[in-house]
Order: sequence, then structure tokens, then C-alpha cells
Amino acid sequence: MNAPTTFDTLEVGYDVPAVPGMDETEIQTPCLILDLDALERNIRKMGDYAKAHGMRHRIHGKMHKSVDVAKLQMEMGGAVGVCCQKVSEAEVFARGGITDVLVSNQVRDPAKIDRLAQLPTLGARTIVCVDDIDNVAELSEAAQKHGTEIECFIEMDVGAGRCGVIGADKVVEIAKAIDAAPGLKFTGIQAYQGAMQHMDSYADRKEKLDIAIAMVKEAVDALKAEGLEPELVSGGGTGSYYFESNSGVYNELQCGSYAFMDADYGRILDENGQRIDRGEWENALFLLTSVMSHAKADKAIVDAGLKAQSVDSGLPVVFGRDDVEYVKCSDEHGVVADPDGVLAINEKLRLVPGHCDPTCNVHDWYVGVRGGKVETVWPVSARGKAY
Amino acid sequence: MNAPTTFDTLEVGYDVPAVPGMDETEIQTPCLILDLDALERNIRKMGDYAKAHGMRHRIHGKMHKSVDVAKLQMEMGGAVGVCCQKVSEAEVFARGGITDVLVSNQVRDPAKIDRLAQLPTLGARTIVCVDDIDNVAELSEAAQKHGTEIECFIEMDVGAGRCGVIGADKVVEIAKAIDAAPGLKFTGIQAYQGAMQHMDSYADRKEKLDIAIAMVKEAVDALKAEGLEPELVSGGGTGSYYFESNSGVYNELQCGSYAFMDADYGRILDENGQRIDRGEWENALFLLTSVMSHAKADKAIVDAGLKAQSVDSGLPVVFGRDDVEYVKCSDEHGVVADPDGVLAINEKLRLVPGHCDPTCNVHDWYVGVRGGKVETVWPVSARGKAY
Repeated sequence: MNAPTTFDTLEVGYDVPAVPGMDETEIQTPCLILDLDALERNIRKMGDYAKAHGMRHRIHGKMHKSVDVAKLQMEMGGAVGVCCQKVSEAEVFARGGITDVLVSNQVRDPAKIDRLAQLPTLGARTIVCVDDIDNVAELSEAAQKHGTEIECFIEMDVGAGRCGVIGADKVVEIAKAIDAAPGLKFTGIQAYQGAMQHMDSYADRKEKLDIAIAMVKEAVDALKAEGLEPELVSGGGTGSYYFESNSGVYNELQCGSYAFMDADYGRILDENGQRIDRGEWENALFLLTSVMSHAKADKAIVDAGLKAQSVDSGLPVVFGRDDVEYVKCSDEHGVVADPDGVLAINEKLRLVPGHCDPTCNVHDWYVGVRGGKVETVWPVSARGKAY
Repeated sequence: MNAPTTFDTLEVGYDVPAVPGMDETEIQTPCLILDLDALERNIRKMGDYAKAHGMRHRIHGKMHKSVDVAKLQMEMGGAVGVCCQKVSEAEVFARGGITDVLVSNQVRDPAKIDRLAQLPTLGARTIVCVDDIDNVAELSEAAQKHGTEIECFIEMDVGAGRCGVIGADKVVEIAKAIDAAPGLKFTGIQAYQGAMQHMDSYADRKEKLDIAIAMVKEAVDALKAEGLEPELVSGGGTGSYYFESNSGVYNELQCGSYAFMDADYGRILDENGQRIDRGEWENALFLLTSVMSHAKADKAIVDAGLKAQSVDSGLPVVFGRDDVEYVKCSDEHGVVADPDGVLAINEKLRLVPGHCDPTCNVHDWYVGVRGGKVETVWPVSARGKAY
């Protein structure tokens, strides 16, 4: 189990941005805060959806890198376990008590493969993705060395253009090799169409997912014909989960961003043309920032710059305000246009980060708030676990 | 003093990417590596320049956030101390034994001011920037409470358009207030022109700096007329230090990126039209990455994506190779165009990060290499110290 964090020896403002019981106004900025009510509603909603559609939900732990959030998603949202992208992340989740862990990525470095093969000794069902038949022997050797079982998903490239094989023949070839390899088990297919998740139009996303589903169905049919029916067909994100859930082909979702939301995802549209952050999901994650200079009348300088967030998918949006706008981001500062000069020194703003995953990755803590008070402070457990 | 890191209890690939003595090929990726020979040459070169021009060099610690690198810059490059941007960063440097620390930023939050006023008790000369006369009383009260002295720079906006006052009158007004405030000392002027550092053309940069120098000279003359001659006039970056050094107005430099270099800075041109990373400075910082998938013949997927670097100033450049190119960056992956299919699984590439500061900010360790061996592993001491 993940040991609870002890705050007695931590200095506020040096080690941690806040401690439980503190008033929200006392939180040291810049830091990430979670609106716990909104977070819990998002988690319950996705949990209910998955259950109603008979889907397993393996939440994407790489988004938040937090054992505490993952456990909330399992307890409150019925999630079956996590996926993550790196072996060191998987170790954090397994050590934290998560018993079903998928490394939804290729693992090729010998030292990493050796550690992957030891994950089951931490009590975790261990699954990894394979897209190269040469990887099968490497994984098999390590599993045998440690007397463990590594389950394998074959990763298909269904449009993202990154890792993954293309074509049912290739899938069957690798599945046979896995099936024959000591220490390995062929468990299923990884088919996440990452490239379409952020397309604004629902119809455009559906078109891409229809192609992906057809590719996966062809592979599943080919596997069945060989007596290698996959136990799990896994994929789906916040911009697509309804397509996979209604496909008749997938049986496991891998959503991550739904829990926190961000500005870039928020802009995509649902079937009715409504932004998904205006009904489908709530903003639960905010980058809290303070005004620390206002030497010019029409612009305030805030303390959250590039070191507090990633701007790869655009600038953050000031939550709940249309009188001020975050217009520029440098290493340590944000410039907030304040045409009417309404912002005061030390005034706090809630920013909706442009992109949640790489923004969470630069922080050490989530400050959970409810009713204006700090209720909990959770470590970003797998921060820095990039290996 | 900064306690040396003990590696006995750290797991390679979980806690640290490498340990001293390891072969460079065994380093776990993605991680930052420092070419120690190149780093030392950069540090000596800037040190020699500052000495020859009678300039103090207060290295910018916010670039690397490392006590170990700062000490090397002091020991090998004659630097007088550090500047940094946050109080929590300053605490790390002061606790690490740096005895001259400038927070080159405004500090307005009451809890932060209270901590700033305690920095001198850690043995550090403590300087902070002021751009609002209301801040003077806040700082004075805290210094008196703790029985310490806070030295103050008045920050001038000399073209960056962020923090800082404009005009000699304003500078004189605040200097008088500081001079009269118990617990405070008026020490000088902060005048860093951040906005021009990355302009490619030397002539364009000179034009912007000429304006900045004229603004600072006017303020210095006005202060002298009031009997408030500043002890220090501080500023200058990797793209401008020769202008400040020859200005007759500045006497302290604040360069940071020269030590590591990055792809964005590397593209700017010196007086002779040569890129500054082709003679003036060497690339000493690299993001080491490994090929982990090559399922398509013409592209390799590497393990360094958005969580291992910031792409705010452009994509990284593959060092020393013109046969492959890093063309796309997602959360966990980089796509490297490999038209001739020359890259092998697990092959390592040295990437020159687009922007060093926010890239260093996502990592916990620097792996120092020399002659193909890991010589040292330094913590990114102030990582996460954003408050």
C-alpha cells in the first residue's frame, strides 16, 4: 500500500505548497489544485458509463502519475487497474498496491525488461505491448529468469502513426510467437488511436475511429481463426470512448484526461456540437497562480510560467473570468492582459492548463480542495519516473 | 554544504538514471547528460571573459537549478554567486552553501516574504528585486521581524515588457523609500533585457541593448544626483553579455544558458554571422534518448517526448547526425525520421533540447559523462522549487 504522506516534517512553501486544513487562500503558488467535488463527479460518471456498456476501464495513470488518484478511480469509478507508459511508472503503481498494470508501450532496453519481469513479484498482473517479433524472445527470457509471467498485448497502429504494427497478418504472426514463448501469455490487442482524440469535430473523430475499429476487427477475426481469441481488446480515450464502447470489438477502455480535463481537450465537441468541458466533463484540475507584479496598468504578471506547465497545446485559460486573459508565457512568468486593471497584487487565479499530462509532470503535489479548504495533499507519485 | 549524493540505496532506472563508474551505454533513458569537458570549457571561457572585463558574474541558477553546477561555476569560472527566480530556489542554493543569492524577481506573498527575510540566517547575502513602492514596507517589516538585512535591486523594465518600472523618476522614488526603510539596503539596479536574447541578428540585439543601456544610464545618473549611487548594476544574458560588459554602466552579469547551450540559443548569430554554438559556446547538455520502436521502415520512435523536455522554443536537434531528424513530439514519444532505416532498436541519440531551462526543470538528475564513462550524477537540486 502507498504509505500516507506525513506532513509533520514538511515545510510549506519549500517541500509542499499546502497542508490539509489550510484555507485555500494560504496555498503557496504556483501549484496544482484539484476540485475534489468535480473530480469525484467525473470519476463516477465515467465509471457508470463503462459499467453500463459492459466495458472494463483501465484508467490511464500516465496522465496524473498519482497512486492516490488511481485508487480513487478504482474505488469510486470501478476501474480495474491502470495503464502507464514506462516501467518505472509501473513500479510506482505496483508498489502502491495497484494489482493490474499495463505498460502500454514497448520495452526494449535489457535493464528495463529485467525490471518489467519482476513486476509480478510486487503483486501486479503485468501486461506489456509488443510491436516487433524480436521482442518476444527478450521478454520470454526475462520472465523465465525471474519465474514470472508477462502478459502481452500486440500493439496495432490504428492511425496514430507511432508505435504498433499494421495488418492482421503481422498481428497473427506475433501472437503465435508469444503463445509459443515460455513465460509469456498472449492476452490481447492494444489499439489506441491517439492522433484523433483532439480533433474538434465529433464526425471527424468518428470517421477515424471507424477505420481503427475495422482494422482491429479484422485482426480479431484472424486471431480467432487461428484459435488465438484475445481476452482483452484495449483502447479508447476521452475523445473517443463511446466509439470503442459501442464497437462490439473492444472490451477495455483507457481514458485518462476525463478525470482532470484541460483547455485543449475542453475545446473538442460532443455529438451535439457542445464543448466537452460544458457538460460532458468538468474542469477538476487547475494551476493556481498569484499576481506578483503589476507595474504596468494594463497587464498583471503571474507566477506560473513554463516551469509550472506545458504550453505544447496552447496557453492556459483563466477559469471563470472573461475580464482577464493569459496572453504570454515565459520561464517563470505569465503575462495576464488586464485591460481594466482589476487584478490586485497577490490575487489568485485558477488556470485551466493547456495540456494536463505534461503539466502534471512538472509538479510534485496535488492540493485537493473542497469548500475553500485544503482537504488533502497527494504526491505526484510517479513524477520523474520517465525511464 | 550540499551533502554528496549517496548512491548505495538508489535503484538505477527507478531512482536514478545511472551511477558513477557506469559505461555511457548503460545509462537509463530518457535522461539529461552533461559533457563535462564541454561544460568546463564553457565555464572557464565565460569566467575569463568576465574577469578580463572587470565584471562580476552572478550566474543564473534558475537555468540548471543545481547547487553542484553553481559551485563549479564559482570555483572554475570565478562566479560571485547566483541569481534565481523563486524564494524556494534561493533556499536550496543558500542551504547548499552559496553565500551570495539574488532573487531576481518580485516577492509579494506574505509567507514568501517571511521566508526571504530568513535567508541571511542561512549565511547568504540576500538581494531581491522591487518594482512597486508598496513592497518596500512589506520587506522592511519582515527584515525587522527576523533581525536581518534584505538588500534590494530596483527592477527596471528595459524592453522585456514584464516586471519592472520604467523611467529614472520611478527608480529614484523607490530607491529613496528603500534607503529610508529599516532592515533594507538599496544595493542596485536589475536590468535584464530578456526579450532580445534570442533575436538571431547581432545588430538587432545590439540595437535593443543600446536602448536598455541608455535607460539604465539615465537612472544611474539620477540616483547619483540624489547621493544614491548603486553598488551593483546587474543584467546580461548569453545573447547580450558583451554589450553590458562594454557599457560602462553595468558591473554584474547574469548569464545562464552559456554553460549548457540549447538549440534555440545555438541558432543566434555572433558579430561575424556565425551561430554561437559553432564556436562561442559548446553544447554541454544533451537529452539522451533510445530507440524503442521501429515498426515502420522510415521512422524510429524514441523514448523522449513532452515529459522529458519542453518544446516551447522548438523541437530538439539530433546532435552530430544529419541522416536522421527528430520531427514530432508527443507525451511519451519522439518520432525520428529515419529515411534510410539506419537506426537500430536501443540505439541511443544525443538530443540538443530546444530550450534548456524548462527542460532541466522536468528532470531529477544530471549524469556527468567524460570519455564514455559516467563520472558523476548530480541532483537537479531545486527541481520542483517553484514557490
